[in-house]
Amino acid sequence: MKLSPAQLEEFDREGYLFLPGVFSEEETALLRREAARVYGLDREEVWRESSGVPRTAFAAQSYSEPFRCLGLHPRLVEPVMQILDGPVYLHQYKVNAKAAFDGEVWQWHQDYGTWARDDEMPEPRAMNISVFLDEVTAANGPLIFIPRSHKQGVQAAGHDLETTSYPLWTLDRETVTRLAEAGGVVAPTGPAGSVLMFHCNLVHASPPNISPWGRTIVYLSLCHVDNHIRRFQRPEWVAHRDFTPIEPLADDCLSALAAAQESRGKEAS
Amino acid sequence: MKLSPAQLEEFDREGYLFLPGVFSEEETALLRREAARVYGLDREEVWRESSGVPRTAFAAQSYSEPFRCLGLHPRLVEPVMQILDGPVYLHQYKVNAKAAFDGEVWQWHQDYGTWARDDEMPEPRAMNISVFLDEVTAANGPLIFIPRSHKQGVQAAGHDLETTSYPLWTLDRETVTRLAEAGGVVAPTGPAGSVLMFHCNLVHASPPNISPWGRTIVYLSLCHVDNHIRRFQRPEWVAHRDFTPIEPLADDCLSALAAAQESRGKEAS
Repeated sequence: MKLSPAQLEEFDREGYLFLPGVFSEEETALLRREAARVYGLDREEVWRESSGVPRTAFAAQSYSEPFRCLGLHPRLVEPVMQILDGPVYLHQYKVNAKAAFDGEVWQWHQDYGTWARDDEMPEPRAMNISVFLDEVTAANGPLIFIPRSHKQGVQAAGHDLETTSYPLWTLDRETVTRLAEAGGVVAPTGPAGSVLMFHCNLVHASPPNISPWGRTIVYLSLCHVDNHIRRFQRPEWVAHRDFTPIEPLADDCLSALAAAQESRGKEAS
Repeated sequence: MKLSPAQLEEFDREGYLFLPGVFSEEETALLRREAARVYGLDREEVWRESSGVPRTAFAAQSYSEPFRCLGLHPRLVEPVMQILDGPVYLHQYKVNAKAAFDGEVWQWHQDYGTWARDDEMPEPRAMNISVFLDEVTAANGPLIFIPRSHKQGVQAAGHDLETTSYPLWTLDRETVTRLAEAGGVVAPTGPAGSVLMFHCNLVHASPPNISPWGRTIVYLSLCHVDNHIRRFQRPEWVAHRDFTPIEPLADDCLSALAAAQESRGKEAS
């Protein structure tokens, strides 16, 4: 999957790209089943909200074959290599559940703010690419971006340890208002299988999920290999330390896995 | 403004109708200015959230000329008379601010649940019609409906006095999930001047406003005159006791007011 010159230009200008329909229903169904299994695991990488419902499975590529394939998927890795202009490694991997009724707010923040402050990542030569495993709607806590805010560099931030169950460097209201007056706010919503990629300095937030259904999004944070982190303060499964360039798998890596599961299911029944 | 047979059929089936572009930019701008003025008033009808920001100006038709005109506007009153099949009176009038950053969640509820329990309104022959004074987006706490849930009658509810600053009869999670499995969830979003009308038994909620801008919606709750409330437990300015049939004003009542303000502004400058 190659981004067009128009898409590259749009990403550079707006700070994000939304691509519906990148993964098939068969591929997303496989990942949805796997997310449910992973959230049931009793592992330190699986974080829960104050209510006990799952919030994030970190580093799921290291204990799940479908999520390993997704982390090496050419439809995710190649566009990012194109934008970051070179080989990339996996800095962070999150399977984020926004649980039905209980899924919490994420306050306004920049991801690179955390990567710079906590991990000493030298430059914003890194970005997120995400896959919707469920349809994302206005009801279930979509990501909300301030377009073009990535052009303003790293903003001052406070370390929020109170609002939710995950520590986050968050922006103050004056900053958010100033940036939004210039860029507006947008909420890309769409069906399962959509891909949303955004610059690591793009300011974003997400409201709670008040719908009766969970909503899972997988995030790969990919970083140019020359730009790897210098400080190893956070656990390895939060901020990875393997800076080997990713070699993408074949395009059918997930659909082959789904087909294999299907045929095993048929044998068993 | 007359609803078409197809619109009447859609309202009956889905429980709501969304009509963008009913009021002009000139008319909504007048109402936005007036909302800002009303929220600044020190009156018992103007409720605030726990943070102190305005939440609801009740009965604004009784102390504001623009909101009086809106409450008698033919584009709002006539479609409701059509649906309720007869003369209507004004049961409740709310100018609901969802304040920037602080605007609170409304939990899942039915409006008729409150009107029946608190006000002894005999039947669900009443409904809401609302006007967006600001654009409503996924970011600023849109209304979220469960389509077709109005066909299931009044649901059991608990009196929530905790979650927010306004007491509300709210539905439990099992009920919301069951209804949403059947009808789905939708969030009608659109520009200022849009009109959203919904059945008084339609189950709905709305997430917090995490955007940096306030978002105001005016709600008229209109009731068939034969179906007026029997119990006067809540203040008169929350649940009105004047059951006189509304005589709609002329269609230009708001634009004439805006033009008059405009010419006064020119004289003054």
